Amino acid sequence: MSEPIGPVDASASPRYAGIATFARLPRIEDVPSADIAVVGVPFDSGVSYRPGARFGPSHVRESSRLLRPYNPAQDVSPFALAQIVDAGDIPVNPFNITEAVEEVERAVDALHERAQRVITIGGDHTIALPLLRSAAKRHGPVAVLHFDAHLDTWDTYFGAPVTHGTPFRRASEEGLIDLTASCHVGTRGPLYSKQDLLDDERLGFSIVSSEYIEEAGVAAAIDRMRGRLGDKPVYVSIDIDVLDPAHAPGTGTPEAGGMTSRELLRMLRALSDLNVVGADVVEVAPAYDHAQVTGIAASHVMYELMSLLATQVSR
Amino acid sequence: MSEPIGPVDASASPRYAGIATFARLPRIEDVPSADIAVVGVPFDSGVSYRPGARFGPSHVRESSRLLRPYNPAQDVSPFALAQIVDAGDIPVNPFNITEAVEEVERAVDALHERAQRVITIGGDHTIALPLLRSAAKRHGPVAVLHFDAHLDTWDTYFGAPVTHGTPFRRASEEGLIDLTASCHVGTRGPLYSKQDLLDDERLGFSIVSSEYIEEAGVAAAIDRMRGRLGDKPVYVSIDIDVLDPAHAPGTGTPEAGGMTSRELLRMLRALSDLNVVGADVVEVAPAYDHAQVTGIAASHVMYELMSLLATQVSR
Amino acid sequence: MSEPIGPVDASASPRYAGIATFARLPRIEDVPSADIAVVGVPFDSGVSYRPGARFGPSHVRESSRLLRPYNPAQDVSPFALAQIVDAGDIPVNPFNITEAVEEVERAVDALHERAQRVITIGGDHTIALPLLRSAAKRHGPVAVLHFDAHLDTWDTYFGAPVTHGTPFRRASEEGLIDLTASCHVGTRGPLYSKQDLLDDERLGFSIVSSEYIEEAGVAAAIDRMRGRLGDKPVYVSIDIDVLDPAHAPGTGTPEAGGMTSRELLRMLRALSDLNVVGADVVEVAPAYDHAQVTGIAASHVMYELMSLLATQVSR
Amino acid sequence: MSEPIGPVDASASPRYAGIATFARLPRIEDVPSADIAVVGVPFDSGVSYRPGARFGPSHVRESSRLLRPYNPAQDVSPFALAQIVDAGDIPVNPFNITEAVEEVERAVDALHERAQRVITIGGDHTIALPLLRSAAKRHGPVAVLHFDAHLDTWDTYFGAPVTHGTPFRRASEEGLIDLTASCHVGTRGPLYSKQDLLDDERLGFSIVSSEYIEEAGVAAAIDRMRGRLGDKPVYVSIDIDVLDPAHAPGTGTPEAGGMTSRELLRMLRALSDLNVVGADVVEVAPAYDHAQVTGIAASHVMYELMSLLATQVSR
Amino acid sequence: MSEPIGPVDASASPRYAGIATFARLPRIEDVPSADIAVVGVPFDSGVSYRPGARFGPSHVRESSRLLRPYNPAQDVSPFALAQIVDAGDIPVNPFNITEAVEEVERAVDALHERAQRVITIGGDHTIALPLLRSAAKRHGPVAVLHFDAHLDTWDTYFGAPVTHGTPFRRASEEGLIDLTASCHVGTRGPLYSKQDLLDDERLGFSIVSSEYIEEAGVAAAIDRMRGRLGDKPVYVSIDIDVLDPAHAPGTGTPEAGGMTSRELLRMLRALSDLNVVGADVVEVAPAYDHAQVTGIAASHVMYELMSLLATQVSR
Amino acid sequence: MSEPIGPVDASASPRYAGIATFARLPRIEDVPSADIAVVGVPFDSGVSYRPGARFGPSHVRESSRLLRPYNPAQDVSPFALAQIVDAGDIPVNPFNITEAVEEVERAVDALHERAQRVITIGGDHTIALPLLRSAAKRHGPVAVLHFDAHLDTWDTYFGAPVTHGTPFRRASEEGLIDLTASCHVGTRGPLYSKQDLLDDERLGFSIVSSEYIEEAGVAAAIDRMRGRLGDKPVYVSIDIDVLDPAHAPGTGTPEAGGMTSRELLRMLRALSDLNVVGADVVEVAPAYDHAQVTGIAASHVMYELMSLLATQVSR
Repeated sequence: MSEPIGPVDASASPRYAGIATFARLPRIEDVPSADIAVVGVPFDSGVSYRPGARFGPSHVRESSRLLRPYNPAQDVSPFALAQIVDAGDIPVNPFNITEAVEEVERAVDALHERAQRVITIGGDHTIALPLLRSAAKRHGPVAVLHFDAHLDTWDTYFGAPVTHGTPFRRASEEGLIDLTASCHVGTRGPLYSKQDLLDDERLGFSIVSSEYIEEAGVAAAIDRMRGRLGDKPVYVSIDIDVLDPAHAPGTGTPEAGGMTSRELLRMLRALSDLNVVGADVVEVAPAYDHAQVTGIAASHVMYELMSLLATQVSR
Repeated sequence: MSEPIGPVDASASPRYAGIATFARLPRIEDVPSADIAVVGVPFDSGVSYRPGARFGPSHVRESSRLLRPYNPAQDVSPFALAQIVDAGDIPVNPFNITEAVEEVERAVDALHERAQRVITIGGDHTIALPLLRSAAKRHGPVAVLHFDAHLDTWDTYFGAPVTHGTPFRRASEEGLIDLTASCHVGTRGPLYSKQDLLDDERLGFSIVSSEYIEEAGVAAAIDRMRGRLGDKPVYVSIDIDVLDPAHAPGTGTPEAGGMTSRELLRMLRALSDLNVVGADVVEVAPAYDHAQVTGIAASHVMYELMSLLATQVSR
Repeated sequence: MSEPIGPVDASASPRYAGIATFARLPRIEDVPSADIAVVGVPFDSGVSYRPGARFGPSHVRESSRLLRPYNPAQDVSPFALAQIVDAGDIPVNPFNITEAVEEVERAVDALHERAQRVITIGGDHTIALPLLRSAAKRHGPVAVLHFDAHLDTWDTYFGAPVTHGTPFRRASEEGLIDLTASCHVGTRGPLYSKQDLLDDERLGFSIVSSEYIEEAGVAAAIDRMRGRLGDKPVYVSIDIDVLDPAHAPGTGTPEAGGMTSRELLRMLRALSDLNVVGADVVEVAPAYDHAQVTGIAASHVMYELMSLLATQVSR
Repeated sequence: MSEPIGPVDASASPRYAGIATFARLPRIEDVPSADIAVVGVPFDSGVSYRPGARFGPSHVRESSRLLRPYNPAQDVSPFALAQIVDAGDIPVNPFNITEAVEEVERAVDALHERAQRVITIGGDHTIALPLLRSAAKRHGPVAVLHFDAHLDTWDTYFGAPVTHGTPFRRASEEGLIDLTASCHVGTRGPLYSKQDLLDDERLGFSIVSSEYIEEAGVAAAIDRMRGRLGDKPVYVSIDIDVLDPAHAPGTGTPEAGGMTSRELLRMLRALSDLNVVGADVVEVAPAYDHAQVTGIAASHVMYELMSLLATQVSR
Repeated sequence: MSEPIGPVDASASPRYAGIATFARLPRIEDVPSADIAVVGVPFDSGVSYRPGARFGPSHVRESSRLLRPYNPAQDVSPFALAQIVDAGDIPVNPFNITEAVEEVERAVDALHERAQRVITIGGDHTIALPLLRSAAKRHGPVAVLHFDAHLDTWDTYFGAPVTHGTPFRRASEEGLIDLTASCHVGTRGPLYSKQDLLDDERLGFSIVSSEYIEEAGVAAAIDRMRGRLGDKPVYVSIDIDVLDPAHAPGTGTPEAGGMTSRELLRMLRALSDLNVVGADVVEVAPAYDHAQVTGIAASHVMYELMSLLATQVSR
Repeated sequence: MSEPIGPVDASASPRYAGIATFARLPRIEDVPSADIAVVGVPFDSGVSYRPGARFGPSHVRESSRLLRPYNPAQDVSPFALAQIVDAGDIPVNPFNITEAVEEVERAVDALHERAQRVITIGGDHTIALPLLRSAAKRHGPVAVLHFDAHLDTWDTYFGAPVTHGTPFRRASEEGLIDLTASCHVGTRGPLYSKQDLLDDERLGFSIVSSEYIEEAGVAAAIDRMRGRLGDKPVYVSIDIDVLDPAHAPGTGTPEAGGMTSRELLRMLRALSDLNVVGADVVEVAPAYDHAQVTGIAASHVMYELMSLLATQVSR
């Protein structure tokens, strides 16, 4: 088999040059076949507060120009281990959530025909539902490892069953997730009522809260997270608001008291021996970002995921 | 009849103090009756590009704290001539355009029971449709004086007939506008095709383009605008993007080559002897604003409208 | 007794809608009686460096729209336990510090007639003096728990005895504080001289510095803080610059090397069994904020204080 | 007489290098004698809305690094015609307006001993009062040419007779201004009442409003302005908010509908044959500026003034 | 001949979706042949003040997503008349100006083999030199129509003969420009000395200054410009700083008193019957931009140029 | 010996007043002799990504106005212990790296004649090479303590041997550094290849990575760092991007997952008994900063270095 085609060579073309693909990787049209595809879903019609994540994919691409080929923290060169590509964006209807969700599912199903693993850039968290549908079709119910300030297991909002606050309730109801192995990490901030926590547990999640991380430390949090996931196929869904607003101002529903980017990257690296079957990074809202701080955090998070997946697919 | 209750007294409470109502006017709950009501519609689910106008009403309120009681340009003290109030926001469904549009229409109809004239702060331009429905119920087809960079007479977008690009086509089709007296002012920038212009004319609009204003001057533009409006009842709909991005960066679909705020204020003052039956100022997207430049422009535009309407209702 | 009136219902009115009160709570005018009042003091004429905290109250209100009713970290629903209200702002003279300080004292005294507990949003730290005067009238000398990068026990500046750098010296001299139980938390950065520390100790404060927190950890800091406070009535005064500039850029005299918002929230939760008699959150200067990062941190800090106080007043 | 010492040589030291003096001119300490002195007054305790002009002098200095030695619009090389220096800032008491105003007067009187002409960078408009006192001592009542969105002839505010809204009323009452020759240029926006205009006229001002400029054009405005000034000694006071917020977002009380910087520069050049005895540029509030747009406008305005004055003093 | 391939269809893919090419046009790799190519030169090592224009091409691409296919101001559909493509960026050495300039010349020469006309996005103004070399090879000495706040005919700076302040001096010396037909439009602000003007005239330029435009009006300026250009082949070089900083804050050497974007667009449209052989738009420095105001102005300017060229090549 | 001349007295001149020198210290011209000199190098022509550090020195000066004379964390009053001065900027050629590097070396050599210790504000990291050349001339090979997200031991980039990515490789090759005692602290993010690490080790560095700090803690990191440095003369080179982008957004090549400013200050304080012979703080790029967050962090870092050096030189 031939060598993967890597990113544009930075010694021939400076990193700020050229049309922006994620990490300056080749477009899916420009390679014969792909192992891992990055795809954007520029959709934010499911948000309940600050919109703007529709510009997330292009912002994260522009913020990813500095990513280099070797990841010393995982001792892996993802772009050499696997053919990773930028599959562009899935264009979806901004005026019809139902239709948009179907379009995402269809497009990701199709993309799975061309690449073993898909990493999605949102877009708001609504899109986790069609992404989980697509994942479950291939892997059965998955252990969802959900990094977020919020539970996202609310029921309906203004009569809408599918919004950015509900994907994991819908996914649980549809049998897409492994009820014994899923967990939220980094949740914090006020809820509607205590019932939210009871519902959440019933829907299959345990919680490693931000307060727990503050008090027990990151190592303990990793232990709890890994204990929960076991050896199940894992789907990683990362709402960038799991980071503190200091680290991710560019998001839609920020809550004080969150994680640092250093902590989040460490947690992701702790997944290296697990079977990660898919991932998304959502809720980057560029209009609220500053100097790409949020975009860079998101792009590094994606790079760690990519490093995990490249190792897996090359095993 | 009793004196109108005016804004909070700035000699007793500094302008930066207190919970923000528009121009520090009383809330509708706090007066016995009202002549003119300002109302917000925090809705932006109809946008095709940058969202964020849902935060427009609160931003314009915060940006209106400096408005004082006497308007020397029109030689009128609007808050003394008429009881003007802040009627708060119309809370609408962010996930269902059809429902939202109905909610706006219902709420504005109800508000018209309590106040002769309503000035609406958007929100995106979608809301012009229910506002025109409500106006036409009371006044018959109205002459629409539409300030905007765009025509907003497109047909459908992603299958949605009612978005921020279509209100005036729908309104024309529904017979809400006077086909002989409506016009766009300040349009500019690329269109989809020449057919857009033909459709627009058929739908009842003439155009005083930004290029015309640049070449012929503001006085000539006012003449054309007034010639078109005649003595019909006028509904004024102002998309803040009629201003150049230098004057209104905080908006969703900015186009270079627009008007200055000085020109727009002058044009509005030229309407003083007309019968203005309603007005809206839309598409203020605060996340893209800087130092309230856009919010202040919008609040001054509203103040001129208010001065016109106060003169009318007190005649 | 009747149920408290809670915030505007977010399932009927989206969080970005409506005129902003703190956490969308009712205004004091709109409830029969109140347990806890939030009040703003838009005053910044006591600052020695960057002004702008006069816009703090409105900014924190706008930044508090996302606060929901149940606090899982304290397992309490503050708005259900107590009637909490927004009492608006105390309008004070921007040109006369002496008069402003008297106005605050009078207004807060009056507010204490209507609500058991008051949480104040600054404004600059000057206002801690009249707030402590009012608290001491009701509770005797109080243990001041002061979160700040600075000591605020300086003497005079440009001949002015009452500025944002002096409230705790004046309060100590006036016998308002318990000299055996007060402490600063989070201080850091350069001082004028070593004498500042000696004076500070003599004025009744011990110090849990930012360096101590970095080296000994938050748990140790909480132990020292609680050991100092004992079971005295506690007044909590929080200068938002206790947070690192990364977490609170929107303030007037930022110093590198501060706390994270997660650490501060944890420290506040550790006060749950103490008798907190009053609190303020000051020095939010919105012109230097970005994407409400500082405003959100301040609003979460206030929410934790509110949760503590609601538990207390309902006991 | 020796050649004036000019700015740092940009061919030896790039413009972004070195400690910032205005236009990289020598400090007053570094020259034997001076013709024209630039001096800052970092004071903003007289403002009624957004504070921050205390940082104006340093911001304008940083924004003036690009100013080169030859002014083609006036065909004059100001730094060669006269010894122009940066006299640093007048440090004044931020907590006592009366004392601050006296300090400015004393310091500017003293500076006039060392330089024939002084151009002041504010600071807020309060400082025009002591500057006019100093000017009138030397030149008798002066024709004030006042560029501003506001009249600044209000009476008292919160009991304070001397604030940024009152300097020209106080100056008129004190006999500092020529009642037959003073005028405002560029005023616009709402007032408190029609009485404001009557008072203003009685205090000695005529008005070339922003509306007049829009309708009659800049040439007509210049004619009216020059007609009013006659051949009197002229003091030029420029509140940067005379510019539209698009051109000067960084100011404290912005009003829509203002002048462009091109228009203002043109008006200043039209004064070239008059006897300008002093000038100030005030109300630059950097926290609200973007990319030095306001600072650059202010520095260009000062450069035109400097060119006028250099021509005068060298005649 | 086949129909040109146009931009991505906005009715199928929203404008914010997809990897950004200029105006969402096809990449040069994706079409069989091209008439007009847009190419970026991300180079800013020739700047004397604020750097950052190396990010100009990607910023202008992101800012061009709203450009639609029909230009009503010129009554032309450029993407239908000609095959217009995005040729990506020319990657050049950031550490060696001489080499970079050669790389640009070589790459543009090569691009001219594939497309009749090239529009370049800078990058700093240094690149005008190799662009003129390439143009002159094909068309002989060209009439340079140069929009800029600055003359850019300085000699050397820090010993470097080729920087962003010198391209037109070098070009004149090399015989690349028509000395009887070239002109600057919009120049303003201070120069080094009067000699700069004399040199400039000798090098072949006449000047339509910003002051002239202010005083004589845009129509007169167009007449002078057209009178100068005659019927020569015209190369249009647009430094975005020709616009006032209000309209183009995102640039490296801003000068107050510039043109509006409306005026610039009007001037470009006045070239419709001339033979434009090439064009560049340079000095967009995104780090200083706000809400894409500068990027949008640049993209509209390019769209007008494109409309002119499409008409020409299709004749 | 006479008392050192300290900063401008803040009780006589407010901190925001006056022309900005670092910490308001005297200029080198204004003192008879100096112990420690702060000097700026406004140079950024060696950067590979975001330029702008040429404005670093003036930005850090403006951000240092709040620094007071007593450092409680080190219990030292640096300005009283030693004569510390601001030596202004070294003006260097922006168009020729080789020449610029020679200019820096010459100027710092000369400055070392006048002051025992020099602390440099960059500018980009290229300048570490001439700074190390100057240090090694006086002290022999030095132990480099290098705080940075990056190794900066790359070889060439676009043929240039001396850029901001290569200073420590060149320094090692030139024998300027102690190969047994140098280390990087805080490195993180992707590299080009594993070979980078092997080269780096061979060039004389050990690595205390950001991941190590996260996992082992700051105390352990300090132990490793001190173990490596031993008792060698230490040169401290601090790239501000060693901080997380949350703490230092204003830099050129930000990487997620970095240190807090509190951690960095702690590490610097741990050097108090070592022989620090020189230091630099580089890569502050103000155009990407917000509210001086980065500038303040840099100024505090310099203050800690200054406190260390003042103690040393006074021993």
